[in-house]
Order: sequence, then structure tokens, then C-alpha cells
Amino acid sequence: MSKYIEPTDRTKLRRIPKRGSFERETVYEILDEGFVCHVGFVANGQPFVIPTAYGRAGDTLYIHGSAASRMMRELSRGVDVCVTVTLVDGLVLARSAFHHSINYRSVVVFGRAEIVAGEAEKNEALRVFTEHLIPHRWAEIREPDSKELKATTVLKLKIDEASAKIRTGNPVDDEDDYARDVWAGVLPLALVPAAPVADDRLPENVAVPSYLLNYER
Amino acid sequence: MSKYIEPTDRTKLRRIPKRGSFERETVYEILDEGFVCHVGFVANGQPFVIPTAYGRAGDTLYIHGSAASRMMRELSRGVDVCVTVTLVDGLVLARSAFHHSINYRSVVVFGRAEIVAGEAEKNEALRVFTEHLIPHRWAEIREPDSKELKATTVLKLKIDEASAKIRTGNPVDDEDDYARDVWAGVLPLALVPAAPVADDRLPENVAVPSYLLNYER
Repeated sequence: MSKYIEPTDRTKLRRIPKRGSFERETVYEILDEGFVCHVGFVANGQPFVIPTAYGRAGDTLYIHGSAASRMMRELSRGVDVCVTVTLVDGLVLARSAFHHSINYRSVVVFGRAEIVAGEAEKNEALRVFTEHLIPHRWAEIREPDSKELKATTVLKLKIDEASAKIRTGNPVDDEDDYARDVWAGVLPLALVPAAPVADDRLPENVAVPSYLLNYER
Repeated sequence: MSKYIEPTDRTKLRRIPKRGSFERETVYEILDEGFVCHVGFVANGQPFVIPTAYGRAGDTLYIHGSAASRMMRELSRGVDVCVTVTLVDGLVLARSAFHHSINYRSVVVFGRAEIVAGEAEKNEALRVFTEHLIPHRWAEIREPDSKELKATTVLKLKIDEASAKIRTGNPVDDEDDYARDVWAGVLPLALVPAAPVADDRLPENVAVPSYLLNYER
């Protein structure tokens, strides 16, 4: 597979192209750190943007949902989809209002989703999905049964039309503004776990697994 | 203004309606905790989903961008837009793969954006926007000049077709699965600030402002 994803009219950056990347590794790194995407699709001519979790294996993104959900029904029909993943890294405080910004990494994937059919393939996609969210989890839990698999629609989307966009580092102020007596720099932000909270019905002798104590994206 | 937002075909929840809310206060609380939205629109029949920062004042959302950006040009034409804000609160670990979930709060707003015209109104919208991201910041920074205002497109979107969706609390497992010997509960997640990082060119005598040291969403 090529190291770079071919730019298209939908993915190429028109402004500030230095913030863009078509490198497959960069796109994958962002997708692997995130786990919630925003899925855009058109239904009855109207745009919808729905947040949902995802998993990645190779050049494929997996999402899933109830077979009864509007989004899954629409996407199952093979309509155009735009899937966006955004990681917020910090607030960029400049000396002028105009140059305030946000440090972020985002990926946009365009394409058409396909249904993952067949129990074995579906189960494997759900394993990928679950391990993407919580590595080491799958081995410990009850796998889906036939009824659960039937109630779940799993979709896959090839990552072959995609790009990343990244803003990083300090504010870039107008030269005249650097002399101003105001704090400037970056306030880093990250999605951070707190201590796991046990379910009310969990027996006391079940310890918190190490993959949760050391959880990080 | 009514305490509740009128449901429409686009905003009503078809499944699990108990997770939905049309209460204005709930919608506003989520919008005020967040600051990055995902904007969905249709261009040439294709869906686009673009992350961008926003601010809120009363029943109005403000976004802004370069007058040259594709998104701002498309939205300025008054096309239908779907703006989604998602806050991730935690991973929900159940005994079965099927009942794994995510605790989140999200808001979806539908409508058509309007251009904020006029220097004074534009400046005020940018103040609201900046204060939404970083309260107390506006008073300390250089406000936009005429040239900067001209280079910036500011759009407003009325929050009059919107709904919130919330999942909270413990996993809900099948009764048979509660006896399983696997940890279950919630791993809380939150967007947390780290220590502010001063710009390379900041004079040493400029202290970090208290609104950054105490920053929280």
C-alpha cells in the first residue's frame, strides 16, 4: 500500500496547506488516538452529523449501531459519508484576538460504507472495535451471541480518500504585537482518565484490570 | 423564551427517547462546556463535516473563519447546516461486548447560518466567541482591527431546532451476565488542562493569568 493517500478535490487543503498531511501513518496515528468520530451524511437533502465510536484495522474504519437507527439505515444504503475525527491538544493564546487559535489534529475520511455481513466477519469487526476503545478487553468479556449480532449493524469504510490536518505550537502574532504586556502561549488540553468507578453490582473481590489503571490514548 | 425547544422530525429521537432532552437549559449547559463543534453541510451533493470552535450567547451560536475558507463560503450562502457538539464523559465497561457503551453528552443544532455584518456586531460576536473559549481573555488582548474584521467571516445560528442526548451511569447488563467474573463499571474521561506553556518570545516578567491557572470547562 502506498505511503501517501492520493489527494482529491474533497480532501485537498485550499488554505494553509502546510497544516495538511496525506501521509497514511499520520492519518492512522490520529485515528488510533481517537475513538469518537462525527459521521456526516445527507438524508432528504439535509445534512446530519452524528457522533459515534469507531475502530480501525489496517485501511478500514468500523462503526456499528442498532440495526434500527436512522444513521445505520441510511449509511447501509451506500450513501456518501464524511467521517471526521478531531483531537483537541490545546488553546493557543496570542497577543491579538485575531491570532488566537486551537492546537488540534483532525482526520477527514470520505467514502461509502459497506455492510459487514456474516457472523464471523461481524464478530471480528466488533473485536477490532472493542479493542480500539479498550485494548485487552475482548478476551475477558462475553462475545456477542447470534441474536446480538443480528440486532447490530456493522459498517466498514475504506480509508482511501482521507487527509489529516494539524495545528501545533505557539501563537504566531503580528510583529508589532509581541511587545504587548499580555501572557501568550499554549494551554495544553488532553482527554485524561480518572480512577475507574466499579459498577454497583460488582463483587468486591474483582480487581480493576491493569489495562484500565494504565489507560491512555 | 420557552423552557423547551420544539421537537421536529430532524431532532426527535426514535430510539431510547429517555436519553434525549429538549430542555433549553440542558442544551445550553452542554454547549457551554464544549467549545469545538462539528459542522455538517452539503456541497455538490456531498456531505462535509468540519471541526471548528464556537461561542454561545443566549439562543445564538457563533462560528468564524477565514472569508476564503470553503466552509465559510458555503455556509454564508444560507445552506442547511447541522452543528454537533459532543462531550465524552467515560467508557462504560459491561460484562458482555454488546452492552459496552460510552457516557457522553451531545447536542445537535439544525438551521441555516446568517452572516454577522457590520464591524460593531462582528466585534461583539468575536468577543462572545473568545470569552466562550477563555473567559476573561478579551479585556487583555488587542481587539481586531478593520482589516482583520474584513478577513474574518462570522456566522450566527439560532438555537431553535436542537436536542441534547445524554448517556450516563453504569453499564446495563443482561441479568445472566452479572455473575461473570469480570470487572465492570465506568472509566471516567475528561478534557483536562495541563500547565500553561509560555510562548518563546514572552518576557519573563509576564505572569500566567489566574484564569488559565484555574481553567476548567
